[in-house]
Amino acid sequence: MKQPKDKYEVVSEMGKRRGYFWQSYEIYGGVGGFITYGPLGSLLKRRLEEKFRRFYLQPLAILEIETSVIMPENVLEASGHVENFKEPTVECTKCKRKFRADHLLQEFGEMTDTETEKMALQSVVDELKSHNIRCPDCGGDFNKAEQFMTMFTTTIGPYSDSVGYGRPEAAQGIFVEFKRIFESARGRLPLGVAQIGHALRNEISPRQGPVRLREFTIIDIEFFFDPEDKKCLIINDVGDETLRFVLAENKLKGITEPVTITIKEALNKGIIKEEWQAYFMAQAKRFLVEMGVPEDQQRFIEKLDYERAHYSMQGFDQEVYLERWGWTEVSGHNYRTDFDLSRHMKASGVDLTAFKESEDGGKRFVPHVIEPSFGLDRLVYVALEYAYTKRNKRTVLSLPRDLTPMQVSVFPLMNKDGLLEKADEVYHLLVNEGFTVDWDSSGSIGRRYARADEVGTPLGITIDYGTLEDGTVTLRDRDSWKQVRSKLAELPSLLHGYFCNRLNFEDLGQIIER
Amino acid sequence: MKQPKDKYEVVSEMGKRRGYFWQSYEIYGGVGGFITYGPLGSLLKRRLEEKFRRFYLQPLAILEIETSVIMPENVLEASGHVENFKEPTVECTKCKRKFRADHLLQEFGEMTDTETEKMALQSVVDELKSHNIRCPDCGGDFNKAEQFMTMFTTTIGPYSDSVGYGRPEAAQGIFVEFKRIFESARGRLPLGVAQIGHALRNEISPRQGPVRLREFTIIDIEFFFDPEDKKCLIINDVGDETLRFVLAENKLKGITEPVTITIKEALNKGIIKEEWQAYFMAQAKRFLVEMGVPEDQQRFIEKLDYERAHYSMQGFDQEVYLERWGWTEVSGHNYRTDFDLSRHMKASGVDLTAFKESEDGGKRFVPHVIEPSFGLDRLVYVALEYAYTKRNKRTVLSLPRDLTPMQVSVFPLMNKDGLLEKADEVYHLLVNEGFTVDWDSSGSIGRRYARADEVGTPLGITIDYGTLEDGTVTLRDRDSWKQVRSKLAELPSLLHGYFCNRLNFEDLGQIIER
Repeated sequence: MKQPKDKYEVVSEMGKRRGYFWQSYEIYGGVGGFITYGPLGSLLKRRLEEKFRRFYLQPLAILEIETSVIMPENVLEASGHVENFKEPTVECTKCKRKFRADHLLQEFGEMTDTETEKMALQSVVDELKSHNIRCPDCGGDFNKAEQFMTMFTTTIGPYSDSVGYGRPEAAQGIFVEFKRIFESARGRLPLGVAQIGHALRNEISPRQGPVRLREFTIIDIEFFFDPEDKKCLIINDVGDETLRFVLAENKLKGITEPVTITIKEALNKGIIKEEWQAYFMAQAKRFLVEMGVPEDQQRFIEKLDYERAHYSMQGFDQEVYLERWGWTEVSGHNYRTDFDLSRHMKASGVDLTAFKESEDGGKRFVPHVIEPSFGLDRLVYVALEYAYTKRNKRTVLSLPRDLTPMQVSVFPLMNKDGLLEKADEVYHLLVNEGFTVDWDSSGSIGRRYARADEVGTPLGITIDYGTLEDGTVTLRDRDSWKQVRSKLAELPSLLHGYFCNRLNFEDLGQIIER
Repeated sequence: MKQPKDKYEVVSEMGKRRGYFWQSYEIYGGVGGFITYGPLGSLLKRRLEEKFRRFYLQPLAILEIETSVIMPENVLEASGHVENFKEPTVECTKCKRKFRADHLLQEFGEMTDTETEKMALQSVVDELKSHNIRCPDCGGDFNKAEQFMTMFTTTIGPYSDSVGYGRPEAAQGIFVEFKRIFESARGRLPLGVAQIGHALRNEISPRQGPVRLREFTIIDIEFFFDPEDKKCLIINDVGDETLRFVLAENKLKGITEPVTITIKEALNKGIIKEEWQAYFMAQAKRFLVEMGVPEDQQRFIEKLDYERAHYSMQGFDQEVYLERWGWTEVSGHNYRTDFDLSRHMKASGVDLTAFKESEDGGKRFVPHVIEPSFGLDRLVYVALEYAYTKRNKRTVLSLPRDLTPMQVSVFPLMNKDGLLEKADEVYHLLVNEGFTVDWDSSGSIGRRYARADEVGTPLGITIDYGTLEDGTVTLRDRDSWKQVRSKLAELPSLLHGYFCNRLNFEDLGQIIER
């Protein structure tokens, strides 16, 4: 019997067909780890970005910068990436295929992420042998493991010794440019600096779809503060927010059941060490809720000492439950201390300290950093999976109205009697008002509703004979399938109110009883 | 005597100090060809992008997609880039430094771009010798020339034969994904597809600043149409627009004086072959005018046969006059015919044709393409250079109000008597309304005006004792330095009107006579 399709499969099928996302370079057989955002997907991604700015960056006046994807070797040497950004690989002695050793041990040796993390190369080979794990492709065996550098390597300019890498995170662009940014902000602390952009990790075995990509969009926020003046002044705004934690101490005991604690409590008990980190974690939870992910489908995993990145003093991963992949990381929250600035200061010889006046004159110090970091491609996918619903066997993509790529569809009831011309007028009226508007004039009105529901367009506007007579149109709601009759002349202001969440659908006109 | 500073120098100095842009990796001595956008620069760049969407993409319902920066070799082989994306280099026999041979011939041999284009490698060496051009660094000589691949090369995944390149243009991402995009758009033609994103060219000798970068942001628009149904239905919207042309036939005669012709005339005389190309060129001119570049500081250069890229049947470069660099390309307009789709169809074996019904059944054809392509970094710089003015020896950055990074500055007159609190209230009111708002409470009000003028913030709002008494504030105009008194309660709607160009400064309140 055929397995029923899971959400990943149905979302991907819809995504391909309607232009959300698909694997890149399909006509050449596809290349793993790269996806293409089609017209709807790239719009959804941009709306998520904009919502993130409004929700996460603007309230703290976090600045944004843009730096290059290609970085020179010395920067990533100083940051520790050249030394640490490696994964153990094994090559099949028979078919020469390469695999990530830790993934083989997890998949075929039933070892956990925690067990395979930071294993020495020889023990990797030993474990493979003791679990009798052979090449999944040809059954050949594995002799020796190697560390594989998972940054893309290139050369900058015509000299082969001028090595460059694709940046594995946007964070280093911020650290390395900290001096100028800090000066242009006239030395204020705390100071948040963000970067949203492409990053590259040369994964050995990328997963399907948008979950483990070789090229992805990262949102890195580096929040700089004085370690001796580290109170978060707005911590009370989130004090009563509850988070579900899987704590390190419980993980060590094999307990993965989350405990629900308020931010206030988490700080009091020392579960989260820094107030700013707590603040950003609470906001991360709220952001995902606004995206459509309920509280009980989210959790925060505390990283064990040896699970943390080389720069992190305390780290939590925010995870969301996905049908195919289970708990999946969508953001990381690390206390990077003064690690990065200190390393760049040492390597470059340039002073990256801040100055603080004090009673006995003043003092220079290296700011500390809390880093919230989001994978934007995963957020896009999460939004789609959580919006994907069925109603009367039809697909309805119930995206929040501030995320939907198309905001309105215009439907001329018939292709005659001046209805097309009138609909065209409405289309341009709304486009000029700044709305993203779709146009669909083919097939029955029911089929057109269905097409709009499938891609998540919240409002449909039907232009009918009544429109020509009295200047009213029918608006239809994607989620409730309710309809109201509204005045064309009032449409722009009604829609502005609706899309900034000031008006409900029922406020848009006279309910049509059916 | 010291040379007076040119605009590039003053704009760059301001850019560094205030956070517009600067050379990347400064603390490590800088890496040529990479720039960093600081907080103001990245905002300006995003606003330009948004304006471009509104002005250039939305009226034609051009779709946008997002594809990867790293591309597999077969795609760029099919597109002809692996074969053609090379430049002649020479290495000094003494100090081993490498140079672009054509640049040496232009700089020290007084040869033109046109003369050095497509020169054979041996003639490059001959010409260097006959002009007695030696290494500019050490005086050594040059023996032989080589072709240097100007794409960044890397490998994808763990196998060294899986070559990848940094994409030199965003266009190929569109061509290679055309099939899905076209299907999701239900086969409509004409169909415009755009991509805005980072691109990479491994320049041998990048210029300073944002003019010749190794990593840059490109806007590529591929406008697909049926070559047998190629009328542009809105050509009359631009028919009377005048462009200044430097024509190929004149260039051959050594005449570079532009001729001014309307779009209608250019089409009638066959100067521009395709209507859609003419339409996009007219819009490109208008866009630059809106950015602040007057008509007489723009021109369109027709490319000679051997100057055109390998895919182009007719090409024009839009150039803008810059003080340091003279005429500088900001956009290219090429008729790419069916070159790219046909090449990918052949290389991949996948059908990329469109279908058209006709009397005798139907016909399949490969759509043709007009490509307008803009360098976004250059546009950012052009906007800054053209906005840079002096008034009473003070710098005023007169950016168009829809491009300024900061829209409003809030100035509490004094740091006491409740003025700070009131100003804070105004600040948050405006931030919540979606404006980008700066805050400046240090130094005299005159110095604060000067700081805001230098970065181009169009409106200053001073909170004074009158504000506490009757709820009015003083608004100040960056360009005229005029002031009006306005009601705080009306500020949001006044500012919305002002920033969408519905209201002038004088409409914002009661003029204060001084």
